[in-house]
Amino acid sequence: MIIDCHGHYTTAPAALQKFRDEQVAGLKGGVDIPLSKQPSISDDQIRDSLENAQLKLQRVRGTDLTIFSPRASAMAHHIGNETTSQRWTQACNDLIHRVCTLYPENFEGVCQLPQSPGAAPVNSAAELERCVEELGFIGCNLNPDPSGGHWTSPPLTDRHWYPLYEKMVELDVPAMVHVSSSCNPNFHATGAHYLNADTTAFMQFLTGDLFKDFPTLRFIIPHGGGAVPYHWGRYRGLAQDLKRPLLADYLLKNVFFDTCVYHLPGIELLLKVIPVDNIIFGSEMVGAVRGIDPETGHYFDDTKRYIDALPLSEADRRKVFEGNARKVFPRLMLGR
Amino acid sequence: MIIDCHGHYTTAPAALQKFRDEQVAGLKGGVDIPLSKQPSISDDQIRDSLENAQLKLQRVRGTDLTIFSPRASAMAHHIGNETTSQRWTQACNDLIHRVCTLYPENFEGVCQLPQSPGAAPVNSAAELERCVEELGFIGCNLNPDPSGGHWTSPPLTDRHWYPLYEKMVELDVPAMVHVSSSCNPNFHATGAHYLNADTTAFMQFLTGDLFKDFPTLRFIIPHGGGAVPYHWGRYRGLAQDLKRPLLADYLLKNVFFDTCVYHLPGIELLLKVIPVDNIIFGSEMVGAVRGIDPETGHYFDDTKRYIDALPLSEADRRKVFEGNARKVFPRLMLGR
Repeated sequence: MIIDCHGHYTTAPAALQKFRDEQVAGLKGGVDIPLSKQPSISDDQIRDSLENAQLKLQRVRGTDLTIFSPRASAMAHHIGNETTSQRWTQACNDLIHRVCTLYPENFEGVCQLPQSPGAAPVNSAAELERCVEELGFIGCNLNPDPSGGHWTSPPLTDRHWYPLYEKMVELDVPAMVHVSSSCNPNFHATGAHYLNADTTAFMQFLTGDLFKDFPTLRFIIPHGGGAVPYHWGRYRGLAQDLKRPLLADYLLKNVFFDTCVYHLPGIELLLKVIPVDNIIFGSEMVGAVRGIDPETGHYFDDTKRYIDALPLSEADRRKVFEGNARKVFPRLMLGR
Repeated sequence: MIIDCHGHYTTAPAALQKFRDEQVAGLKGGVDIPLSKQPSISDDQIRDSLENAQLKLQRVRGTDLTIFSPRASAMAHHIGNETTSQRWTQACNDLIHRVCTLYPENFEGVCQLPQSPGAAPVNSAAELERCVEELGFIGCNLNPDPSGGHWTSPPLTDRHWYPLYEKMVELDVPAMVHVSSSCNPNFHATGAHYLNADTTAFMQFLTGDLFKDFPTLRFIIPHGGGAVPYHWGRYRGLAQDLKRPLLADYLLKNVFFDTCVYHLPGIELLLKVIPVDNIIFGSEMVGAVRGIDPETGHYFDDTKRYIDALPLSEADRRKVFEGNARKVFPRLMLGR
């Protein structure tokens, strides 16, 4: 089985965005539109949104299961207040649940959290529990910067986040560290903010003692770990200068990287420097880059092709494509 | 000749930091200590600070000339106000000038700029001109985020920065895009903020039209370009999706990467994906990572070893070690 750990519902029916647009428009007049005002979405509309996109790409590329979450750039936790975020999050997660119910062979759910700038992370625990216990989701996306590019929250190693981590540990679900869109004009979302957040989170984990307090807490750093594998020597050296443990002995028991790196040399580097036990296949499809690479004639985000091109042992290939995902997402085991 | 384009005076005599400490302490009482209050530094103190550090490392590693600038993390443009920054900058630049005067064969100067949050970049033009015209410097370090991790300035492609670029073009000097220390607890300086700034600047250049307006403006993105080469497929794909020109046809006439990547696989990737004409040897020594890599027995930041290990043609090797630096820093040609 080939499990893609990083897929977003970027092709959701237009009615979802319509609800969001009305929600955002309502904020200007001080109105927070209730969930009951959502336009209805039929099962056929959901099928139509997937058949020619994610499902087709699964077939064409030869992958089996996508761990699927709401569109990351649309989480936009910086818009509105906590109520806004709770309602929008529930709408998005409920739709992911419908996808997983319609196509149980193809998708497993990962939830967005109702984060909001200044709100306590523990306030996201109830939605996480609802998604895992009631909807059968297997993980969450955690935004280290709900302010959308202003970075006003404490680092992920701060006790500020601990009550949410307690819930993650209790439910035995990992988080992908994933920012959303940026309202800071310095940061292009998919070209800077995403990668910066990946790099930032890793360095926070390196300098903090989080995994002493939560030895079973697990994070996936997406987009191939941001800048981290390319600068693996810098991180090994910084850990040494800072008298931190060896990365392989400490961080790599809890931190994993996906393979959303859109060219062969990048994936080669990733597999060369990061232990294979810490690499989980992902494509981010349908996502950040949608075109065909004129240098190869294939989609940039068809990351399976890059892994297929590497001289990995069959055992290592199975870890990247399936085994590591099952280890990091143990709830995925329950149903399959 | 082997030219290291990225060295900082991280070993400056303690009197420099003493002046800075007094300056910062004075700010609390509303006093901005004048430059005349600097403790004196003797030529011998300068020699002592270099002989067993940068100069020794040049000899041991077999490099000839370092393009040398004040300690980047100490620029700290976010501390105090514009006057604070002007005085501190002048003190730092004057000391670099003394280094270059004492060791003209070993160092060429690059200046810090007296940036300050909210201050117009054009206010740095006079110090740039002083350093280039009077002190013989050949470039500058430009901080895209004088706020120190809060990213409150407009992107580098905004007209906000244009008057300073006009001075750079007039003087024919490049800038290294280099942030300083971070006062945002999310960002470790050398482990996150530096690399994020590199990535961010590149994406700003990719999305903007800066080089149409300034076809001869040149930037070096340090630390091997942050996350960019590792994600070169993503950037090629984003440029295509955004209907931007091919990176090789547009950005790469104006943007260059140094080789401050502290392991062989990273340097291999850099040379594999980025055209050799855009790569300039640099080590950041004595800098971000100071230890010896237990996996190789050599200093992490001895980046020359990694390049030496690659099967480059002699012509390409000369470009990386010398030719590209001479092209990007034309004032270096004048004196040598």
